[in-house]
Amino acid sequence: MDAVVITIGTEILMGELIDTNSAYLGDQLPRIGIRLKKLVSIGDNLREIRETLESELVTADIVFTTGGMGPTSDDLTREAIAEFCGEKLSIDSDQLSILKSTFKARHQVMPDTNLKQASLIPSASAIPNPNGTAPGWFVENRGKIIVALPGPPVELQHMWRHDVSSRLEEMSSDAAYISKNIKTFGISEGELDQIFSHLFGKENPFLGIYSKQDGIHLRIIAKASNKEIAKKLIEPLEVEICDKLGNSVWGFDDDTPAQLLIDELRKQGKSISVKEGFTKGLICSNLSEAAGNNYVPIKGLITSPTMPKEERFPTSQSKDVLILSVSDTIQSEGKGKITIEASCDSKTNVISLAHRNNSLRVRQRTANQAILGALRLLNDLR
Amino acid sequence: MDAVVITIGTEILMGELIDTNSAYLGDQLPRIGIRLKKLVSIGDNLREIRETLESELVTADIVFTTGGMGPTSDDLTREAIAEFCGEKLSIDSDQLSILKSTFKARHQVMPDTNLKQASLIPSASAIPNPNGTAPGWFVENRGKIIVALPGPPVELQHMWRHDVSSRLEEMSSDAAYISKNIKTFGISEGELDQIFSHLFGKENPFLGIYSKQDGIHLRIIAKASNKEIAKKLIEPLEVEICDKLGNSVWGFDDDTPAQLLIDELRKQGKSISVKEGFTKGLICSNLSEAAGNNYVPIKGLITSPTMPKEERFPTSQSKDVLILSVSDTIQSEGKGKITIEASCDSKTNVISLAHRNNSLRVRQRTANQAILGALRLLNDLR
Repeated sequence: MDAVVITIGTEILMGELIDTNSAYLGDQLPRIGIRLKKLVSIGDNLREIRETLESELVTADIVFTTGGMGPTSDDLTREAIAEFCGEKLSIDSDQLSILKSTFKARHQVMPDTNLKQASLIPSASAIPNPNGTAPGWFVENRGKIIVALPGPPVELQHMWRHDVSSRLEEMSSDAAYISKNIKTFGISEGELDQIFSHLFGKENPFLGIYSKQDGIHLRIIAKASNKEIAKKLIEPLEVEICDKLGNSVWGFDDDTPAQLLIDELRKQGKSISVKEGFTKGLICSNLSEAAGNNYVPIKGLITSPTMPKEERFPTSQSKDVLILSVSDTIQSEGKGKITIEASCDSKTNVISLAHRNNSLRVRQRTANQAILGALRLLNDLR
Repeated sequence: MDAVVITIGTEILMGELIDTNSAYLGDQLPRIGIRLKKLVSIGDNLREIRETLESELVTADIVFTTGGMGPTSDDLTREAIAEFCGEKLSIDSDQLSILKSTFKARHQVMPDTNLKQASLIPSASAIPNPNGTAPGWFVENRGKIIVALPGPPVELQHMWRHDVSSRLEEMSSDAAYISKNIKTFGISEGELDQIFSHLFGKENPFLGIYSKQDGIHLRIIAKASNKEIAKKLIEPLEVEICDKLGNSVWGFDDDTPAQLLIDELRKQGKSISVKEGFTKGLICSNLSEAAGNNYVPIKGLITSPTMPKEERFPTSQSKDVLILSVSDTIQSEGKGKITIEASCDSKTNVISLAHRNNSLRVRQRTANQAILGALRLLNDLR
């Protein structure tokens, strides 16, 4: 099945808001076997939304819309879909009572403008939205599907996970898809390409290679008549890749370096002290985004080259504290050298890296490398 | 003039890369009076690129393409534009010698695959690219304009600033546009809407209001037969807005909170110590992105609620150190209170904020608020 994502909102055309929903859907759709062939962003204009729906649904099987589901007069996605389907909007009593109780729980009076968020058309069924006021719409009309999702990422992602992905997966009952994302660190894209050259270029299972901020990812996607068979197609590749790469594989699927490190620190009952020169706070910021971070004492010190040495952390030999330190020295022609040092329980792990500049991108990559270096040390201590 | 931006690259459809170029162009185009009516992203497919060019140029005057200008076989933007124009690609001798000297300066041998980056068609003139190997293309054909830009933001933005924007501005010689972006802090969007209600809803000068991470922005755009007249149209609004808002206006146009704070610290010869509880490193990270940060000693401490108090900074009364501290306490139902304290030279500035969650978005907004609070204190000390 081919899909198009239509992002609706003048603020996106004005550069006021960066659309991250499209990247989320682009990442999720191949996992259930849907090919995303195009992304379109248009403004809050009824005619343009309807015309884009019409022209994209000539070739696509599914259109996802994001945005334009709010209560104000410039939220026009529902109206445009109704026009496309040739149907009339009416208030749905179930949706109205959900909407009323949402406002009641917030101790707010529901403004009349919100009423339209309880409306549906005969072709549409509601997608529950526990994080906001507007339900999504799942529309089947003229053999095509329109999935209308709200703009806030937390609302959209919840609907995808709890409702839309499984509904779409069931509909494509002739095929089941399984995917596995293997995340590596310390091996270049070129090396991986060479090691696994015999696996690339095949349709099923498909192997993709992607360079990311936290290393190189290998993604296997398999298609079969049911999930069990698809899983069997993936397994031998997964085993071969993990065997050949050993501890260069640091995680799978939705794993992030920060989450794995926080989980491991929690498991081992350790705290972490971070001394950030080059990364200037990014490591602490990443660790603080991970779930469960409240259970792990995080202490951070951000240093600048002009700071007296005695103000910096002493290196600790404690069993209970992991010390992670990222320093950098400027070398000739603006190029520099970064040293990452992780130490705990008298064991030390040192990584040296060259860098060309101190852009946010290089810093974020370095933060991930430092976290993965610390994680490897902790795993060795287990 | 109406424009469409076409982003080319399968990695964007796969969610592997978030497109920030569209937001950049979306922000820049209105400043020279071009209306962006649509964004489209498609994969690296020759037929799809050509067909999208054809269908979008029916209604748009200009199409910007981004991406697909690299040397590999999946970089197909040049080929698609050549097909659209019905012209043949050939190597341009000037571009070839620029390309050769780029590789020479990098002490690299030019691979044969890069040759195609020196090609042009008769309708295209080259846009210089000092940051990469591929020039952009400025194409005039059938009364329409195609501007083909490379994908890396640093290359695209350089071309926009040094070549494309002025060339497009000259072409729309019947009108000159001037814009002014006024950045405020501490006043809600609703209040601003009320204060300046008499200025909204007009075509020329147009006043827009935008809620951003660093406060509410008011953008004035004026159109006239030349820049001087356009400037005169903007001035009275600018004066009125600045007069009414006083020191709630913290900056203009491309100003960022971090850059203004670093500039002011440098001017006053002060260093900064940052104690980050809630923002967990984001303030130090922001300050480290600002130009000139190497001249300002930045010291940071990231604290967690479980850390003993004595490990935290002492409050300093020094004239030369600005101490910025962001702490938070959790209150009932997961809601919390954030306290921002800026102190220097015995003066103190305290801001208290309520927050619902500790998402990255809320933290980033808080980091900006803290930096602006510190900036206000420094300005008072001048």
